[in-house]
Amino acid sequence: MNKQFAVIGLGQLGSSVSIELSNMGCEVLAIDVDLDKVNDYSDVVTQAVQADSTDEKVLQALGIRNFDHVIVAIGRNIQASILTTLLLKEAGVKEIWAKAQNDYHEKILRKLGADKIIRPEVEIGFRIAHLATANKILDYIELSKDYSIIEIEVTDRLIGKSIMEIDVRANYGCNVIAIRRDRSVIVRNIGELKLERNDVLLIIGKSEDLERFEKEGV
Amino acid sequence: MNKQFAVIGLGQLGSSVSIELSNMGCEVLAIDVDLDKVNDYSDVVTQAVQADSTDEKVLQALGIRNFDHVIVAIGRNIQASILTTLLLKEAGVKEIWAKAQNDYHEKILRKLGADKIIRPEVEIGFRIAHLATANKILDYIELSKDYSIIEIEVTDRLIGKSIMEIDVRANYGCNVIAIRRDRSVIVRNIGELKLERNDVLLIIGKSEDLERFEKEGV
Ligand SMILES: Nc1ncnc2c1ncn2[C@@H]1O[C@H](COP(=O)(O)OP(=O)(O)OP(=O)(O)O)[C@@H](O)[C@H]1O
Ligand SMILES: Nc1ncnc2c1ncn2[C@@H]1O[C@H](COP(=O)(O)OP(=O)(O)OP(=O)(O)O)[C@@H](O)[C@H]1O
Ligand SMILES: [Ca+2]
Ligand SMILES: [Ca+2]
Ligand SMILES: [Ca+2]
Ligand SMILES: [Ca+2]
Repeated sequence: MNKQFAVIGLGQLGSSVSIELSNMGCEVLAIDVDLDKVNDYSDVVTQAVQADSTDEKVLQALGIRNFDHVIVAIGRNIQASILTTLLLKEAGVKEIWAKAQNDYHEKILRKLGADKIIRPEVEIGFRIAHLATANKILDYIELSKDYSIIEIEVTDRLIGKSIMEIDVRANYGCNVIAIRRDRSVIVRNIGELKLERNDVLLIIGKSEDLERFEKEGV
Repeated sequence: MNKQFAVIGLGQLGSSVSIELSNMGCEVLAIDVDLDKVNDYSDVVTQAVQADSTDEKVLQALGIRNFDHVIVAIGRNIQASILTTLLLKEAGVKEIWAKAQNDYHEKILRKLGADKIIRPEVEIGFRIAHLATANKILDYIELSKDYSIIEIEVTDRLIGKSIMEIDVRANYGCNVIAIRRDRSVIVRNIGELKLERNDVLLIIGKSEDLERFEKEGV
């Protein structure tokens, strides 16, 4: 993994991206105008620099055009986010991902050539709504308008039975793809496994079939 | 679905939750101090009210204790978020989900009895880091420390072959759980299907096995 990453802005998003990239062993240059933030992450990333990313000369001095992938994690200061994205594009950075604060901001960033727009609260809001309406569902991942993956805890009715006995596929049209047990995830040969208390089923299927399973199956 | 929802704060998170709950046919009371926000969402939700959620009398007048599930989507104004959560708990609301801005905020909300803490940028930051490092991976869902689901587009090598021929399970130790084709998701009998250009495979497995499939398999 020799890709060179730069993360601009060490707020909640930028710091979380920087930490995870560093955990994966990636080289990360982190930039923030706020010296406190820079100091907080100097031991986490390869290099942390106090700099204003809207200053073209500063970006040049940092050799930003040599980075393969730059993530602009500035949100509230929309003007700084826009100007930074413009300068990165002009410098020739090939992959630019930028956080947008609202629809207009998103549109402008796209026009400037950002390769991916990040809208954390919008994406999470969607998920939260689905989690909130489902009574027993522990997690919900939408795959398309019609298909999702849900996580659902087994009830007394299912304990001691196997997926094959319940025949989720024939009876509900959905597939169990994994079982969470303790802290591990079981993926192989889950058909014959006897379900235990606290097991969590990961099921893929049509939303309507999953809903039926949630109501009748568990 | 007769659950009564209230969403406090119509920022990015609160509005996205409100829209999606309403799309699902749920009754939603939306509250914001900002009248512009309230007007923007008055046609979306069941009822939109301009009110300060840190005012106990206001919450009482709105009959907040009769709501089954309240989502506190106030972020930046940490004091308002904390006070609102406290008042909801004291009113006896059974399910309270609240957005936190940082670790301290999260800790306080938990102590006050919030049932779920929402950290949009942290959750998304994690995902962004994984998407950024993977060259061919279109999406990435972490299930546990060791297991994930990835989405990956088929390459020329795989077109015309079936999952059974490639034998992803035997050769890479991971399972194909669905195929995205055009705008639909195929879940049934995917083993025999001949893969086509632009098909996207959804694969579940150990992170190291998925990485190997990404490097050698496609
Ligand atoms: N021009 C700039 N150059 C470098 N860093 C910047 C610049 N403008 C803002 N930042 C930094 O970006 C980070 C995120 O800024 P943002 O405007 O998104 O604030 P925020 O909404 O509080 O962030 P978050 O919600 O991610 O915590 C901050 O740490 C800020 O100091
Ligand atoms: N006491 C309160 N009562 C009701 N609504 C409030 C209260 N305090 C803040 N809000 C509203 O909550 C919404 C979200 O506020 P927040 O402090 O998270 O701002 P924000 O970070 O700009 O939000 P977002 O990032 O979700 O757009 C705003 O629309 C704000 O008017
Ligand atoms: Ca923010
Ligand atoms: Ca590009
Ligand atoms: Ca915010
Ligand atoms: Ca509770």
